[in-house]
Amino acid sequence: MNSSSLDAIFKPKSVAVIGASTKKHTIGYEIFNNILRNEFTGKAFPVNPKADVVHSMKCYKSILEIPDEVDLAIIIVARQFVPQVAEECGQKGVKGIVVISGGFKEVGEEGAKLEDEVLSIVKKYGMRMVGPNCFGVANFSPGISLDGTFSKMKSIYGKIGFISQSGALGQVIMEYARSLNTGFSMFASIGNKADISSNDLLLYWQDDPEVEIILLYLENFGTPRRFTQIARQITKKKPIICVKAGRTEQGAKAVSSHTGALSNLDVGVDALFEQCGVLRADSIEEMFDIAIAMYKKDVPKGDRIGIITNAGGPAILATDACINFGLKVPELSEKSQNYLRENLMEVAAVENPVDVIASGGPDAYRAAMTAMMEDENIDTLLVIFVPPIMIDHRAVIETIIDVNKHNGKPVYVCFMGPYDQIDGAERLFQENISVYMFPEYAAKTMARMKKYQNWLKRPEGAFPEFDVDKAKVRDILDKAASDERASLIGVEACDILDAYGVPIAGYALASTVEELESAINKVGFPVTMKINKPEILHKTDVGGVVTDIRSLDELSKVFYDMKRKFEEDGVFEVLLQDQIKGEVETVIGMTNDPSFGPLIMFGLGGIYVEVMKDVAFKIHPITDIDAREMIQSVKGYPLLTGFRGSKPVNIESLTETLLRLSQLITDFPEIDQFDVNPFFASANIENCKAVDARFILK
Amino acid sequence: MNSSSLDAIFKPKSVAVIGASTKKHTIGYEIFNNILRNEFTGKAFPVNPKADVVHSMKCYKSILEIPDEVDLAIIIVARQFVPQVAEECGQKGVKGIVVISGGFKEVGEEGAKLEDEVLSIVKKYGMRMVGPNCFGVANFSPGISLDGTFSKMKSIYGKIGFISQSGALGQVIMEYARSLNTGFSMFASIGNKADISSNDLLLYWQDDPEVEIILLYLENFGTPRRFTQIARQITKKKPIICVKAGRTEQGAKAVSSHTGALSNLDVGVDALFEQCGVLRADSIEEMFDIAIAMYKKDVPKGDRIGIITNAGGPAILATDACINFGLKVPELSEKSQNYLRENLMEVAAVENPVDVIASGGPDAYRAAMTAMMEDENIDTLLVIFVPPIMIDHRAVIETIIDVNKHNGKPVYVCFMGPYDQIDGAERLFQENISVYMFPEYAAKTMARMKKYQNWLKRPEGAFPEFDVDKAKVRDILDKAASDERASLIGVEACDILDAYGVPIAGYALASTVEELESAINKVGFPVTMKINKPEILHKTDVGGVVTDIRSLDELSKVFYDMKRKFEEDGVFEVLLQDQIKGEVETVIGMTNDPSFGPLIMFGLGGIYVEVMKDVAFKIHPITDIDAREMIQSVKGYPLLTGFRGSKPVNIESLTETLLRLSQLITDFPEIDQFDVNPFFASANIENCKAVDARFILK
Repeated sequence: MNSSSLDAIFKPKSVAVIGASTKKHTIGYEIFNNILRNEFTGKAFPVNPKADVVHSMKCYKSILEIPDEVDLAIIIVARQFVPQVAEECGQKGVKGIVVISGGFKEVGEEGAKLEDEVLSIVKKYGMRMVGPNCFGVANFSPGISLDGTFSKMKSIYGKIGFISQSGALGQVIMEYARSLNTGFSMFASIGNKADISSNDLLLYWQDDPEVEIILLYLENFGTPRRFTQIARQITKKKPIICVKAGRTEQGAKAVSSHTGALSNLDVGVDALFEQCGVLRADSIEEMFDIAIAMYKKDVPKGDRIGIITNAGGPAILATDACINFGLKVPELSEKSQNYLRENLMEVAAVENPVDVIASGGPDAYRAAMTAMMEDENIDTLLVIFVPPIMIDHRAVIETIIDVNKHNGKPVYVCFMGPYDQIDGAERLFQENISVYMFPEYAAKTMARMKKYQNWLKRPEGAFPEFDVDKAKVRDILDKAASDERASLIGVEACDILDAYGVPIAGYALASTVEELESAINKVGFPVTMKINKPEILHKTDVGGVVTDIRSLDELSKVFYDMKRKFEEDGVFEVLLQDQIKGEVETVIGMTNDPSFGPLIMFGLGGIYVEVMKDVAFKIHPITDIDAREMIQSVKGYPLLTGFRGSKPVNIESLTETLLRLSQLITDFPEIDQFDVNPFFASANIENCKAVDARFILK
Repeated sequence: MNSSSLDAIFKPKSVAVIGASTKKHTIGYEIFNNILRNEFTGKAFPVNPKADVVHSMKCYKSILEIPDEVDLAIIIVARQFVPQVAEECGQKGVKGIVVISGGFKEVGEEGAKLEDEVLSIVKKYGMRMVGPNCFGVANFSPGISLDGTFSKMKSIYGKIGFISQSGALGQVIMEYARSLNTGFSMFASIGNKADISSNDLLLYWQDDPEVEIILLYLENFGTPRRFTQIARQITKKKPIICVKAGRTEQGAKAVSSHTGALSNLDVGVDALFEQCGVLRADSIEEMFDIAIAMYKKDVPKGDRIGIITNAGGPAILATDACINFGLKVPELSEKSQNYLRENLMEVAAVENPVDVIASGGPDAYRAAMTAMMEDENIDTLLVIFVPPIMIDHRAVIETIIDVNKHNGKPVYVCFMGPYDQIDGAERLFQENISVYMFPEYAAKTMARMKKYQNWLKRPEGAFPEFDVDKAKVRDILDKAASDERASLIGVEACDILDAYGVPIAGYALASTVEELESAINKVGFPVTMKINKPEILHKTDVGGVVTDIRSLDELSKVFYDMKRKFEEDGVFEVLLQDQIKGEVETVIGMTNDPSFGPLIMFGLGGIYVEVMKDVAFKIHPITDIDAREMIQSVKGYPLLTGFRGSKPVNIESLTETLLRLSQLITDFPEIDQFDVNPFFASANIENCKAVDARFILK
């Protein structure tokens, strides 16, 4: 990717606004006005065949008339004129264009055609394009100071990059950020992302020191696997915080009529974000809570919160909130408690929360904060201040700012209500201290910090390669293809597992009584008999599975029963399978998501998967660490580590199976889905075996 | 309860402020100032031995000097003077006092003694007291207009009653309400609730038309069972919305150092609220979201949300949020869609969400809202308006207000960001329309409306009485008491269940081979043998339980094995029990909560209860409806209604068992805890049986 062309868009020395207008409250007016209002450091040229003067500047009839070089063109003309204008930009030698105009792919087929036309012109000239149908771009870094959006509010500068897939939300977000005193360096509303996508921008910002945090509002992924690769590199250096809309099927349905793209299964999205370290925010508000908490601050070293309060009630709510979000509120050290006893009023509480009570002023807060800053049991401070009437609020706030400045642990301030009337509160924003109305939001953000800590500490993980019998699987799949069968079950499925070294319960086929004898000799009692007829998918429902056969008599009887029931045209075959006594049933599966590709699933068997929906997903391919995490993340995990006196199962056998199956997916892309159900987990490795599987080919 | 004394507190004709002060920024100053600022309609008298004049009023040295009658005294003197002052109030004939002063039970033993002293004086004179250690009381109804708090902000009037157990939060809440343009009629911070508790206030407001909604901030219950009874009556008439802090053990620990009271198990709190129709809010912010949504509005008839938007992205977030909170976003009727096609721009989306797009102005919003108001598929409207530059915001807002005024369905407005800068937004507050920054909060509130709808529709439920053998249980418990045994297991436990008509797997005891023979004849194969020794609590761990015995040979062998293992001093007894083949294991239990009393628990057996923690609790006693709800509310409920081809189990047998055990708890309060584990549920009523139980006595 040519990054110099993105420089043309984000770090231009000159910009032409094509469609600049003299008419107030039009986009053409607002954008040009914003460029001037924000004091763009380069040259700005208005272009509009219908005007001579715009904002006291000479207005050109066409970009071709501008004698100077033009790096960037922002285009706001009606859609039918965009191709023509793009052509002129190309001829002019413009490197980057931003097409604000709508009415393209997002409105239907006619618009899509127009979009393709514009795109081909863009490519013809080696230009890059943002949009169409977008809110604009901006770079607020002091050296550039370009506001190429039609935001009503003047933004401020901060080292945060923001990418929005929604124009309207882009606007909302810029204004919301402003209200929080939060700024951006670079901003891009990517609209229909006909050319430039979020992936391009992520790469562009990867090593740019102007971007310390990346915020992302997405509705769908163009190329999720690529996103994962890119994001995974970046998040180890700087956080990416994402609001991904279209969580539910209905939400996704709403997406498909918006920008004309289909959304993705949300479970895949969660897996994807987990695997590449992107922090997912549930709402725009939360996205900013997290961003502000991270901005210009070190990531806290642990999850132990120290709470300071001047009122008991709020401290309880805060403690509740922290615990509920998986954080700890530990005891302070003896040393801290002693220090506090000396420095606070007698009736103050010196445990955690520390209650300086209503009469606690600047000195009390200083003492409490200092103690916590030095206490090794505490990683983050939550300072609650309900401003009482006899205390100097400003002095307390300055104290908080001062202690924060000279110490390393993050400080979150909570006022228990709106703080616009509180004397001095705006100073906290100026100092980049996270401020919350209520403690629940502070706790939720702290929990995200913890998640990010864990991601940074997480080792890379390896993709082990196993020695497998590819040829055998090749044969099975070829045979199925030639029979025009898409579904593989029974012995074929077992053979595939066996070829890839997945331990499977001993099995053998039998069509006749003699074969039955040798089969039972191979497999041994107790045994399960299943009818081996590929067409019968739900054998249990039709009496095609009999379990717990313990004697030759029984075996014989069952065999003949099945023969009577299922023999057709002289064809009859059963599968005998060793009845495994594993302690815990698990299920391992794979589905194919149209956007994400193969997803691997793990869960505890049957009921847990189907009723409780207690499963973990990861995007293929998975590392050994991914495999272990999947297993540990199901709610029923305690069943695997020993429950009610039973021994813990052999986890290695599970992780290895997941990895071997991951390798199978890599080697055979024609496999569309599979279920290995059940795979028995057991303390005894002899009993760690799959019993049944089903493969579905594309 | 003498309601005329609460009238003295909330509807006084005269109030004395004892400790009124001339010194600004003291509570003594602020309270008296607030009374005047709020224009109390009655007479206000300052009392302070150290001042002659307060706020241009003659200041009395003692309440006894005031010639007029005084209904209410607000006391702000240092704690050591409070008894004396209370005495004088009593002598004066004051009916109600509010003690703001702190330093009582909440600080320790010394304070507790002082509190008792004050309380006895109060009782001596037949007065009522709010506090001590509180933020004050208020009644903003125009006829009274009493602000007896030291809130910095002037409150407004609305028909909402508010009770706070925390002084600081009381203040926060009054100010937060003000920022939302929400008002109160009556307000009480109950502090240490030495006399008047929330229960008293709930009863006082039960039929008062000045209170349409009750808000409650609690840290602990004094008498939870009484609370349940009172709340249950009230919530069918007017909603109670409660923030209950101390959810977690640690939060509760924080409570115990606050106001000196112990908090309660949170699971009991959830059960309690569910059973008496109190809506629990997770935060103060949410409490107000719900209150505003309910204020002066009908409860919506259903959970079907119609979304209108002028931008696609926000609509997706809104749809996601609604679905995630269990609401529906259904298709509009053909009629509506046709109407919209005629009245909106061609490119507008006419499904649900309806997208009027960025150019949609007042007419478009009117059309969309009108269609939804008339569409029978829709119960509530969520109107998203991201104010675009070329649209008249005020006109759109007035349109929303107008359509809302002339139609019955609730309207929630969402601006997707802060709205203080939006022209006309304050008009929505004036019209009591719920406004949200982001759709997630609107959806959460709508979900609470749905919960309340369900509560209102919920029938009363009956407490059935069964014919049981009380005497038999009496004997068993007496015997245990005389043996000084607190734990009853094995055959004693089975006998208790049997006496109360709980179906139990056939059982018989045997000490000798002869007894064994008659036992097996009674019970039948297959059978389980358990060692019957009350001291052995975990029989499975020591080989004291053998299942699946199918033949006399096996029976004999197992019997002798156990005899060898467990015979002691010639004493040896086994319990034979019919091996039930029920489809689903369930667990029914009871624990005793120090505040709530007996809690009944239901869950699916073993692993579901112990690992997944998938259980339902109710407070005893339970009705038939409670019993059914408990069963339906566990996540694993689908296992009971037929899973993978298996038949649904007989639910009646479960509900009846729960009710019979509830009756057992009523009849025998000396039972402290019990577990019936497992109770097998089955399609076949013959197999709906308990297999084992354990009772623990107090």
